[in-house]
Amino acid sequence: MVDKNLLSELYPFWKELTPPQEAEIAANTVIRTFKPGEVVHGGGQECTGVLGVIRGRLRTFMLSDEGKEITLFRLVDGDTCMLSASCMIRNISFDVHVSAEIKTEVAIINAAVYDKVAKRNPHVESFMNEIISMRFSEVMWVVEQVLFMKMDKRLSIFLLEQSALDQSDTIVMTHEQIASHLGTAREVVSRVLKYLSNEGHIAVSRKGIKILNRNGLLKMTG
Amino acid sequence: MVDKNLLSELYPFWKELTPPQEAEIAANTVIRTFKPGEVVHGGGQECTGVLGVIRGRLRTFMLSDEGKEITLFRLVDGDTCMLSASCMIRNISFDVHVSAEIKTEVAIINAAVYDKVAKRNPHVESFMNEIISMRFSEVMWVVEQVLFMKMDKRLSIFLLEQSALDQSDTIVMTHEQIASHLGTAREVVSRVLKYLSNEGHIAVSRKGIKILNRNGLLKMTG
Repeated sequence: MVDKNLLSELYPFWKELTPPQEAEIAANTVIRTFKPGEVVHGGGQECTGVLGVIRGRLRTFMLSDEGKEITLFRLVDGDTCMLSASCMIRNISFDVHVSAEIKTEVAIINAAVYDKVAKRNPHVESFMNEIISMRFSEVMWVVEQVLFMKMDKRLSIFLLEQSALDQSDTIVMTHEQIASHLGTAREVVSRVLKYLSNEGHIAVSRKGIKILNRNGLLKMTG
Repeated sequence: MVDKNLLSELYPFWKELTPPQEAEIAANTVIRTFKPGEVVHGGGQECTGVLGVIRGRLRTFMLSDEGKEITLFRLVDGDTCMLSASCMIRNISFDVHVSAEIKTEVAIINAAVYDKVAKRNPHVESFMNEIISMRFSEVMWVVEQVLFMKMDKRLSIFLLEQSALDQSDTIVMTHEQIASHLGTAREVVSRVLKYLSNEGHIAVSRKGIKILNRNGLLKMTG
């Protein structure tokens, strides 16, 4: 039985549950800790469950048959992923992959149990629908970037976002990893990093990518 | 007052409405006919309403600041679009454009009225959520094509889909129009059409693009 206080912090609908609904969800939730890079969902698991990030960071991405990747959105402390429980969502016909970026503690609610409670409690269903609309919007932002933005702009946005996530001026990532986030080739990332470096916005070294001129990088995203 | 029989054919939740709910929706729905190319939603109209296609075909697309386009999905007889009423959907923070592809008759339900009824009737809300999940899935299919498929495959898929929509072996469209659907440049479309033509799958003439070898084109999509 998972601590109900923990679940009440993750889920805004918790206060709207009946005591039996609380008990049912708590009894069908497991807490798991994932190592950096570990697969949380995808690759055959059809319905991992509803993921609630207690502490850490997850990456949700698409993966092609040829192994090409693109990041759709990331989940940090307090965030929920429903697409890992798409079996319970009518009309969701695609699958995503989720992996841990750093050591991440996740509460996983069994999808069938979530679905059962949602069918009886409109607050639980509303929460699911709000999360799906939020992810839809995040994916549309990715589509907009992929289709309409040049790579120097996309990479500048990515570096600033990553710096905020890591709370650091230095982004410790390989060009290959950045390419996977952006759904492009390593060569493209290397070329654009070189351009941003020539402009004096960043410094690229073996230790990582250091942001030297945050305002300059911000201007690139405009 | 719009004919209730028409609305009951468009909306599966109609039989679950109370008589006052039926009356309220019918009184706040307008029927409009759009000419080919005419804008149905977008370009400043923030909340056109819930669109139900009575007869015809609508195209939903994204448009960049520079005028680049990509088709997200199309709506045919009986289809519903909720993204044209995104003001009523929590967490939907993007906007799409909708235009008529052929002469199209549309029933437009006022968004505030739909929202009001949905808040009281879970069948109406469920329908909205099902449509949003369906569109999310359709957009993910577009993302997959854009990111992971070569243009010869994407164009073959497009020609077969268009042929099915038009119920014709000949697709009467300019290379520019096809490029707008696929979010690419006209030159790219012209080049790939030439390739498909050299392979004997299609014939390109001033009259349009004629499918000569449907099986050959189908193999391209595999």
